Amino acid sequence: MNSPLDVTAYLQTLGRAARAASRTTARASTREKNAALQAVHDALAAAQAEVMAANARDVEAGRANGLDAAMLDRLTINEKTFAGMLEGLRQVMDLADPVGAITDLVYRPSGIQVGKMRVPLGVIGIIYESRPNVTLEAAALCLKSGNATILRGGSEAIHSNQAIAACIQAGLEKAGMPREAVQVVATTDRAAVSALITMPEFVDVIVPRGGKGLIERISTEARVPVIYHLDGNCHVFIEREADLAKAVPVALNAKTHRYGVCNAMESLLLDAPVAEAALKALAPLYREKGVELRGCEKTRAFLPDAVAATEADWSEEYLAPVLAIKVVDGLDEAIAHINRYGSHHTDSILTENVTKARRFLNEVDSSSVMVNASTRFADGFEYGLGAEIGISTNKIHARGPVGLEGLTSQKWVVLGDGHIRQ
Amino acid sequence: MNSPLDVTAYLQTLGRAARAASRTTARASTREKNAALQAVHDALAAAQAEVMAANARDVEAGRANGLDAAMLDRLTINEKTFAGMLEGLRQVMDLADPVGAITDLVYRPSGIQVGKMRVPLGVIGIIYESRPNVTLEAAALCLKSGNATILRGGSEAIHSNQAIAACIQAGLEKAGMPREAVQVVATTDRAAVSALITMPEFVDVIVPRGGKGLIERISTEARVPVIYHLDGNCHVFIEREADLAKAVPVALNAKTHRYGVCNAMESLLLDAPVAEAALKALAPLYREKGVELRGCEKTRAFLPDAVAATEADWSEEYLAPVLAIKVVDGLDEAIAHINRYGSHHTDSILTENVTKARRFLNEVDSSSVMVNASTRFADGFEYGLGAEIGISTNKIHARGPVGLEGLTSQKWVVLGDGHIRQ
Repeated sequence: MNSPLDVTAYLQTLGRAARAASRTTARASTREKNAALQAVHDALAAAQAEVMAANARDVEAGRANGLDAAMLDRLTINEKTFAGMLEGLRQVMDLADPVGAITDLVYRPSGIQVGKMRVPLGVIGIIYESRPNVTLEAAALCLKSGNATILRGGSEAIHSNQAIAACIQAGLEKAGMPREAVQVVATTDRAAVSALITMPEFVDVIVPRGGKGLIERISTEARVPVIYHLDGNCHVFIEREADLAKAVPVALNAKTHRYGVCNAMESLLLDAPVAEAALKALAPLYREKGVELRGCEKTRAFLPDAVAATEADWSEEYLAPVLAIKVVDGLDEAIAHINRYGSHHTDSILTENVTKARRFLNEVDSSSVMVNASTRFADGFEYGLGAEIGISTNKIHARGPVGLEGLTSQKWVVLGDGHIRQ
Repeated sequence: MNSPLDVTAYLQTLGRAARAASRTTARASTREKNAALQAVHDALAAAQAEVMAANARDVEAGRANGLDAAMLDRLTINEKTFAGMLEGLRQVMDLADPVGAITDLVYRPSGIQVGKMRVPLGVIGIIYESRPNVTLEAAALCLKSGNATILRGGSEAIHSNQAIAACIQAGLEKAGMPREAVQVVATTDRAAVSALITMPEFVDVIVPRGGKGLIERISTEARVPVIYHLDGNCHVFIEREADLAKAVPVALNAKTHRYGVCNAMESLLLDAPVAEAALKALAPLYREKGVELRGCEKTRAFLPDAVAATEADWSEEYLAPVLAIKVVDGLDEAIAHINRYGSHHTDSILTENVTKARRFLNEVDSSSVMVNASTRFADGFEYGLGAEIGISTNKIHARGPVGLEGLTSQKWVVLGDGHIRQ
């Protein structure tokens, strides 16, 4: 494509086709949607060699273009990744279908019955980077929830994404679904992103999965609602009435179970009366795992060899073996610190005191609030959603892990028998 | 204020104060919020003379500025309007408080308990025109749902709004709540709207209530999620298996109960086999009420003196005694017409056939779908929400009538006993 104008026209064509296809996916039965997912599964399984060859081209080009090891790793589809993709499809087939569920249907004084019916959102635009298996995961979740999808992957994965898209569309067609229920943008032109996020007539919501540059661009340009997945600056607060026998393993798990994930703890808050004991127990465990400790002045009084934390550390999402530690004076200071410096993602209090636990749950303004549990539990699988398309940091619509239900809405249903308004 | 820069700085000040106040409103108990509403009620009742004098200044200025009769009517606070405002406050006090409700709390295989807690959105910006009683209604609903509010009314109601705001803030202060929980923008500068809708750090959602010009401007400029209230091009479809003894009163009610409202029927669809009989029964009733009928060719074959409808009529929200009538051939054509030309607001099928009713409910993509009931029921009071801040035409977050629950979100709550992720 030669000009942004061409790209816009191309995206409009995809959009119009997606809108039309979404009428079919919206009214498809669970059986029909699962049959389509099965057909996609079979088409993909049959095309393993082609998909992996296409992926090899991307990996080779990525290496030539100097992608770093982490990016190359995310880009690569090996035997295990491929098997995981097929397994993921089977898991989505097993998920309960949220569409059509009617809840809260009650009689009103007027005699009408009023309730809510869960319905697909319509057309979902997914913008992502690097990992080509997102193409399949996202398409499967959107289809199961009755939506059409337009996917825009990173340019570094263009061949992999096109090969996967060909399998998805072949499967859809075989199962009698419109091919346009899942469309992968075929151009790497960056203007495609701008076009995709500015056509509210064809796209109902955008789910971006990518780095800060992408997110900032989308938040400036989007004319369509966006389900954001921003930073995870998660806290664990060891309150003075914590049982250290529980608190120490939780604080260790929250930091060291995995480092590069949004639900890892980045700041540890210690209530003054237990700070010394907690540090004495935890510091050797962190150090054994190679975690760099950055402490406030009070922390460093107990732990002189910790790095001095700066103001910037309290807001940082390290995604690395680094931990900021602050000693606070009680629950109020802890809650104020979390609400001020946190990213409203996931925060946990460790305490045996039910009144303080209750206040923490009520007053910390985060998408997940926890008592005596590791922040690492903030995850669609752990919460029972089956799979997640992302972890929303929005307040409206879906907050926290977003599964099938987050890809749907509710409309009102009214049943009468010739009722008129008086 | 002399420059857009000053206005932006002023709105930032309001925003910062609202954000701080929202921490207090979010954790206020139901008893505390109701006490604040009672104090506002009492302050307002005591200041009736001042409020009505301020309103008289606005009405006088409006008359001098050539506002039309309908706008002057909406602007005027008379004895009855004032009593209605006080009564509305008492009704909000009586509503159940949605905040803090925990639902779906279940044990997961890992041993943690996971559930959802309903929480306030934070700070809500309301932008509205003309009717000064919106100031009170919106402030009360936002406060009851634990949110802080920034209200920006029309310049034509500035004195009324300031007088009402003074009562609200006096009441809040008396009840021990921060005055900044409800703030009314004190400048009529249009730059205030631009500033209010572009500060996501201080405002969580915007609810506009106004005409198309306002809505278009907001949809172009907003950097904050918006709960839109767009057109209501509502349909009634009299299907061939309808019982005309029920259908005729419903079709009459949907059009003529009130004309200037978003849930009034604007297009009537008639299934071919019953078109003649339905028209024979309905046309005289509509004409008796002075409703202008605009029909498709088939309609005019039965009703030669109907105006010929043009393509534009199918998309029109008349808000007036005008009705577009189209004869369609069966359910499929009716659904396709509604999904194409409708505004996804409220649509009703009249039929005795349960299978067709089921398909209509599933396949019509509107915020309210109805069987054998007048579209006029699409309303917060009729649905049992108690009061509504608007009727959302969004698909994400709240769809259809928005009450207290639509002004809240849900966060995840996790309860453990020292659980760590394996």
